[in-house]
Amino acid sequence: MTKPPYGLLEEEKVFKDPVHRYIHVRDELIWELIGTKEFQRLRRIRQLGTTYVTFHGAEHTRFNHSLGVYEITKRILEVFKGRPGWDEKDRLLALSAALLHDVGHGPFSHSFEKVFDTDHEEWTREIVLGDTEVNKVLSHVSPTFPKEVADVIEKTSPNKLVTSMISSQIDADRMDYLQRDAYYTGVSYGHFDMERILRVMRPTEDQVVIKQSGMHAVEDYIMSRYQMYWQVYFHPVTRSAEVILTKILKRAKELSDQGYDFKQKPNHFYSFFDGKGSLEDYLRLDEAITMYYFQIWQDEEDRILSDLCVRFLNRHLFKYVEFNPNLRMNDWPILQDLFRQADLNPDYYLVIDSSSDLPYDFYRPGEEEERLPIHLVMPNGKLRELSRESDVVEAISGKKRTDHKLYFPLDCLEDEREHKEVKQKIRDILNV
Amino acid sequence: MTKPPYGLLEEEKVFKDPVHRYIHVRDELIWELIGTKEFQRLRRIRQLGTTYVTFHGAEHTRFNHSLGVYEITKRILEVFKGRPGWDEKDRLLALSAALLHDVGHGPFSHSFEKVFDTDHEEWTREIVLGDTEVNKVLSHVSPTFPKEVADVIEKTSPNKLVTSMISSQIDADRMDYLQRDAYYTGVSYGHFDMERILRVMRPTEDQVVIKQSGMHAVEDYIMSRYQMYWQVYFHPVTRSAEVILTKILKRAKELSDQGYDFKQKPNHFYSFFDGKGSLEDYLRLDEAITMYYFQIWQDEEDRILSDLCVRFLNRHLFKYVEFNPNLRMNDWPILQDLFRQADLNPDYYLVIDSSSDLPYDFYRPGEEEERLPIHLVMPNGKLRELSRESDVVEAISGKKRTDHKLYFPLDCLEDEREHKEVKQKIRDILNV
Amino acid sequence: MTKPPYGLLEEEKVFKDPVHRYIHVRDELIWELIGTKEFQRLRRIRQLGTTYVTFHGAEHTRFNHSLGVYEITKRILEVFKGRPGWDEKDRLLALSAALLHDVGHGPFSHSFEKVFDTDHEEWTREIVLGDTEVNKVLSHVSPTFPKEVADVIEKTSPNKLVTSMISSQIDADRMDYLQRDAYYTGVSYGHFDMERILRVMRPTEDQVVIKQSGMHAVEDYIMSRYQMYWQVYFHPVTRSAEVILTKILKRAKELSDQGYDFKQKPNHFYSFFDGKGSLEDYLRLDEAITMYYFQIWQDEEDRILSDLCVRFLNRHLFKYVEFNPNLRMNDWPILQDLFRQADLNPDYYLVIDSSSDLPYDFYRPGEEEERLPIHLVMPNGKLRELSRESDVVEAISGKKRTDHKLYFPLDCLEDEREHKEVKQKIRDILNV
Amino acid sequence: MTKPPYGLLEEEKVFKDPVHRYIHVRDELIWELIGTKEFQRLRRIRQLGTTYVTFHGAEHTRFNHSLGVYEITKRILEVFKGRPGWDEKDRLLALSAALLHDVGHGPFSHSFEKVFDTDHEEWTREIVLGDTEVNKVLSHVSPTFPKEVADVIEKTSPNKLVTSMISSQIDADRMDYLQRDAYYTGVSYGHFDMERILRVMRPTEDQVVIKQSGMHAVEDYIMSRYQMYWQVYFHPVTRSAEVILTKILKRAKELSDQGYDFKQKPNHFYSFFDGKGSLEDYLRLDEAITMYYFQIWQDEEDRILSDLCVRFLNRHLFKYVEFNPNLRMNDWPILQDLFRQADLNPDYYLVIDSSSDLPYDFYRPGEEEERLPIHLVMPNGKLRELSRESDVVEAISGKKRTDHKLYFPLDCLEDEREHKEVKQKIRDILNV
Repeated sequence: MTKPPYGLLEEEKVFKDPVHRYIHVRDELIWELIGTKEFQRLRRIRQLGTTYVTFHGAEHTRFNHSLGVYEITKRILEVFKGRPGWDEKDRLLALSAALLHDVGHGPFSHSFEKVFDTDHEEWTREIVLGDTEVNKVLSHVSPTFPKEVADVIEKTSPNKLVTSMISSQIDADRMDYLQRDAYYTGVSYGHFDMERILRVMRPTEDQVVIKQSGMHAVEDYIMSRYQMYWQVYFHPVTRSAEVILTKILKRAKELSDQGYDFKQKPNHFYSFFDGKGSLEDYLRLDEAITMYYFQIWQDEEDRILSDLCVRFLNRHLFKYVEFNPNLRMNDWPILQDLFRQADLNPDYYLVIDSSSDLPYDFYRPGEEEERLPIHLVMPNGKLRELSRESDVVEAISGKKRTDHKLYFPLDCLEDEREHKEVKQKIRDILNV
Repeated sequence: MTKPPYGLLEEEKVFKDPVHRYIHVRDELIWELIGTKEFQRLRRIRQLGTTYVTFHGAEHTRFNHSLGVYEITKRILEVFKGRPGWDEKDRLLALSAALLHDVGHGPFSHSFEKVFDTDHEEWTREIVLGDTEVNKVLSHVSPTFPKEVADVIEKTSPNKLVTSMISSQIDADRMDYLQRDAYYTGVSYGHFDMERILRVMRPTEDQVVIKQSGMHAVEDYIMSRYQMYWQVYFHPVTRSAEVILTKILKRAKELSDQGYDFKQKPNHFYSFFDGKGSLEDYLRLDEAITMYYFQIWQDEEDRILSDLCVRFLNRHLFKYVEFNPNLRMNDWPILQDLFRQADLNPDYYLVIDSSSDLPYDFYRPGEEEERLPIHLVMPNGKLRELSRESDVVEAISGKKRTDHKLYFPLDCLEDEREHKEVKQKIRDILNV
Repeated sequence: MTKPPYGLLEEEKVFKDPVHRYIHVRDELIWELIGTKEFQRLRRIRQLGTTYVTFHGAEHTRFNHSLGVYEITKRILEVFKGRPGWDEKDRLLALSAALLHDVGHGPFSHSFEKVFDTDHEEWTREIVLGDTEVNKVLSHVSPTFPKEVADVIEKTSPNKLVTSMISSQIDADRMDYLQRDAYYTGVSYGHFDMERILRVMRPTEDQVVIKQSGMHAVEDYIMSRYQMYWQVYFHPVTRSAEVILTKILKRAKELSDQGYDFKQKPNHFYSFFDGKGSLEDYLRLDEAITMYYFQIWQDEEDRILSDLCVRFLNRHLFKYVEFNPNLRMNDWPILQDLFRQADLNPDYYLVIDSSSDLPYDFYRPGEEEERLPIHLVMPNGKLRELSRESDVVEAISGKKRTDHKLYFPLDCLEDEREHKEVKQKIRDILNV
Repeated sequence: MTKPPYGLLEEEKVFKDPVHRYIHVRDELIWELIGTKEFQRLRRIRQLGTTYVTFHGAEHTRFNHSLGVYEITKRILEVFKGRPGWDEKDRLLALSAALLHDVGHGPFSHSFEKVFDTDHEEWTREIVLGDTEVNKVLSHVSPTFPKEVADVIEKTSPNKLVTSMISSQIDADRMDYLQRDAYYTGVSYGHFDMERILRVMRPTEDQVVIKQSGMHAVEDYIMSRYQMYWQVYFHPVTRSAEVILTKILKRAKELSDQGYDFKQKPNHFYSFFDGKGSLEDYLRLDEAITMYYFQIWQDEEDRILSDLCVRFLNRHLFKYVEFNPNLRMNDWPILQDLFRQADLNPDYYLVIDSSSDLPYDFYRPGEEEERLPIHLVMPNGKLRELSRESDVVEAISGKKRTDHKLYFPLDCLEDEREHKEVKQKIRDILNV
């Protein structure tokens, strides 16, 4: 018996959502996608990685956020419906891409990808195109549908309009995460008038554009983004936990490379230590699995691995000082050497972490990261790049801000039972 | 060198909290307690167990809630300060008990306690009195302080006033969880004017009482509680996940009792299977550990264990029908037998779950669960029990509401490849 | 040149509204109605009369509220669209009636109607059917349209469904004012999940009914209403201002009846003093006009009129005590007499004010005020009256609560320069 | 009998406030000031003048706002208490100045002051120092206290710290109005983390400064201010109503100057027409009085006065076009002449309105409007001007933005029954 094509659900399903009040699902396709095990797995991956150590409310998951991006996209489509420039046949493409755009994220993606040299965007592609429940559901729409969805998520799709709805400088993804992360952390940034922005979005062949009358709401959104980056996403305490997490993974890999005999084999990680992790291996990973290993590694013989895991779980984080990459050049080898003398491996206990953000930019041809600018539709129908109309946006356009910090275990440096003098020297240099 | 007694922190510490805006810590004692590994462990235990499968926002942890109860208690103390009936020397006792009242909770406590016959209140006592970081910190106040805190949490303390601040029908615990759970789930219930309630709370020898002018705010709080129980806490879908979770633990224990050879030894659970779990064993448990086992058990040989784990992780839950415990009496053995014929072990696949709540009650001497009623202080200084003043509260006082549901895997019953007829019979009886 | 029939506006108009975020107008008809001078006049009539003396935020007007009722009705219609039982041709009828349902309100309606024996419902009818801009706009739809709108507002329309949207125990009017009045006063009552209620409303021939799954949201709404009545609408301080206001109007009328020579003629009021106020006269009245007279009457010779106006403007209100209409029977003539002896006219300075509310009722045939009950549609399609399903609603159904208070100028009674002994007697009786 | 000096109220009084939740009054002095008739009069003067014609929620009054500024000041004082640099004896000075800072505002101050050449700051001084209830209450503190309060409000006080709490670039006044005006209009701007800002405010001899850790909250506040100015305060529709209002007052004055015989004498205005308004005259004025005259002037013989009043009351506003003061130079006399030909007096019907705002500025010696900049206290204790630390603030510092619009009655220009050709010419020039 052939399964009939997807249609509408008999009765609309609703999810209670604190950010958008309700998330509504009418399409069988979407309902089926949500039910796949690859999508349900997002319930076990936090949206903001280690941010919860700084903002205790930030325990929400990517499942949460993905539903939110879907809902915003659905609302954009309600505005587009019937307008010139919008083809209703792209509806399910936009909704599916919105829902699945983060499906390839793994546990603590940022650190994981750095250590194991993988990329969540590639995993997303594999999940959409590979032998998965997600692929089965998408293929039921049409044999080419999974590829179309993957292309939108990867920004290689010829359908630039749909692509810009999911990823551009003002897209459903950002609009959801700014509001959602603000809600769960409780910070007062992250608010902007999304309802207004949705109402002034207009479809064009190349991208979503904004009616000029909505410029101030967009300004407010850009400022929200700016504040969220520096107040929440790049919070130095969060980065301290992230630094430790990265070093745990790095140490475990290094030990494995050296043939270290783990008390309990880290089976879930071996293939990644070897750079051969399969999709199946990847999908088994989540934050519960990762935290399980961190916990048992507390009892490992290796002092570094065990110490870092104790620190991570019990929130004994590294302290930090501002770090000027130029000025400190000469100090660096000296510092590393002093750490070694103090019996602290500088590869793990003296860490530079840099964050940088470019809150908004217009198109700068030839530059590394070309960004599609936000365009306003003026009353006369012409398009105009946002920063030409907005003083505030103009002021921050293209201004990359970078912050360098040096992380280290201050508690060890203050423990004067051993290496008292060398630790004093270090503290003098670090001025702590 | 002797450690100096706890005093005030040089600089107040603040936590950003979405429910109370900020949580402020000035006491070194409180700061030290928060930093203990037993308290940090609460970050790995969700506040609402399996509720997140129904309300995706409900991913917040007991760490979150415990800070909230502390903050509310702190605000009550600001109102009490200087009032007759309040002794400022009990301040740290109240704050410590508030912070630690849930420290003994384990992963998915409700199911865990049912299957392994333990009790989070006993664990709390052991954590406070045993060989733990928490105990060390508390003992630094005075040798008897841990016992005083434990007694308040256990409600055996002679200090009835402080006890009633932490556990009574209107206490800091309930006021926090109603608001917090409403915030994270996004439901519109759970709101009441806490600021008003705090301002009308007054200390008496026996309990916290409420100025009569605040009666309506209290009514609103009681109604919030009523709505939250039936709309959130007892949601039938949440209970379905809870049923499955309980059956997973039960199956694992049963298999272990039978000497089943697990592919990977569930070391974290063995002592609990045997009823011999130590405090150390218990503190190792958290929801990450539990989820780790659920995930690897998906690959176990035992079909029941593996099926239940797959269901839990991928949210393939049991369906339910209303169940009238009297009417169905006769059907019950028949149903069980039909399940067996359909190759579905009724011990795991046919489950009655009952929830009941008594939203408010006054003192009924001799009854099973004697509850301290809420008292209003009238303008003339006399106390009056709440339900005598409030029509609305009177209407629901002492009215226990119970709900029985029967859970089963509808998908299996609809799979007609095998046992077609017997499954049809079952569906006829269940009317599904 | 004939004016073309009303259609859709070229571009939707939006009003920023703090309660519903935005109010959207697409219909030319609605836009024209909002622009009429009779509707704009509602900007000069407060929604909550004298409540602002108690809750300083309650300065919003009936213009505000009327737009809100329109918006909610519009949202209900979006749910109804395409459902059996709803005829899209009634759309403009529902929207117009929603917008205009309060257009006949005058300044401080409650007091005004009591003193001058008029009725805002009659004035609404006259505005809709008489020689007004509103009538002109409505007549442009069809010659019978004004009458249809008036009938809906008056609840005499054969269209019971549309009538129940505007006035029933769960209608757009109440849903707006509970939320709006809560918002502007700042009280924490008045919140309920309107979005949920709207989604479960269903049209039937006789009335709007509610899907059973939405019962708890309706319970919450009923409780909000209950709390708002006693916490806000019947606040004793508000009623004190209302008592004084009523007595000002009564005194002015009485003086006019007696041929009193006002320093400045109260031209706006004469026809109402004589019971002959025309629609034109009525439309000239608003709260600015009323306050103008109150201000100039502060300088009138008549001591009572001038004193009451000073009290009203400077918020020197009457105090109150609880009043038991039965117990005090005998005291009443004595009290009145004592007031006279103390040179305080009891007709103006000793006032009983009673408020009573019936938060919800089902149909009780033959009773004075027959109310259409709220019906739930059960999963089997049958209707069931709300209180039969909800314990909480059942508990308060049909329970009328009445509150009697006695108002008087305590300041005068405490001024012992004259009538010291008689004032002491009064204070003893009143126990103040 | 001598009245005892002011102390604390027996029981704290609270006002329910939607913005700050509760406003608390413990000081008898403050309670007495709120009760004065000059302060109660602020209930009859809207906070945002004609803004309600654009944002219908903006009906709140200066009474509202004044309580809010008092409450914020009280909260700042709670932070200052006990800190070096703060002298608790200035507490009542700060609270009184906060409460009274706007007490001199009249009806629609902006227009009123422009036409009658008065200044609300002078009136405030007169109210504080003159023969008023406010002065009596203040004098009861000490004979010099009224003068001290007036000096703070006028910014001539030697107490620069207290002055900066009430009026500076980050003061209690602005913090209240931004939040309050956002709340009542319903716009999503105007939110910032005031609780955070209050916690990082520190007293110094010269002004309130901000701990550097709170810089981002201050940035957010500055951006809120920027958005509120352009989105709310300078909204072109509001300014259209303001233009008409100004012209009504101007016309009435002009007619009076010409000896015009008003049907009803505008007694409340005569002394202001003549530039001789006394404090007593001024205190009689409020928005009810003003609206009363606007209503009766609708029936005046003078066509301009009557037309403008009809427009104002029924919201038949002027339309506008952008106006470039340079480019249009030559057109201007031509336009004025064409208006005259079209029988439209350009003095009333062709109006340029300019708004300009400087969202933040640092000290620029010698410039017209020297502004006290916001200073951050760095961790090393040094002060640093805000824009040197904040990119965003730096970007908008000192950038005055000005907007010129030309207002005119488009309806008249489109009425082609008379002067068809000249009106066509005007429309061509104005491009409407």
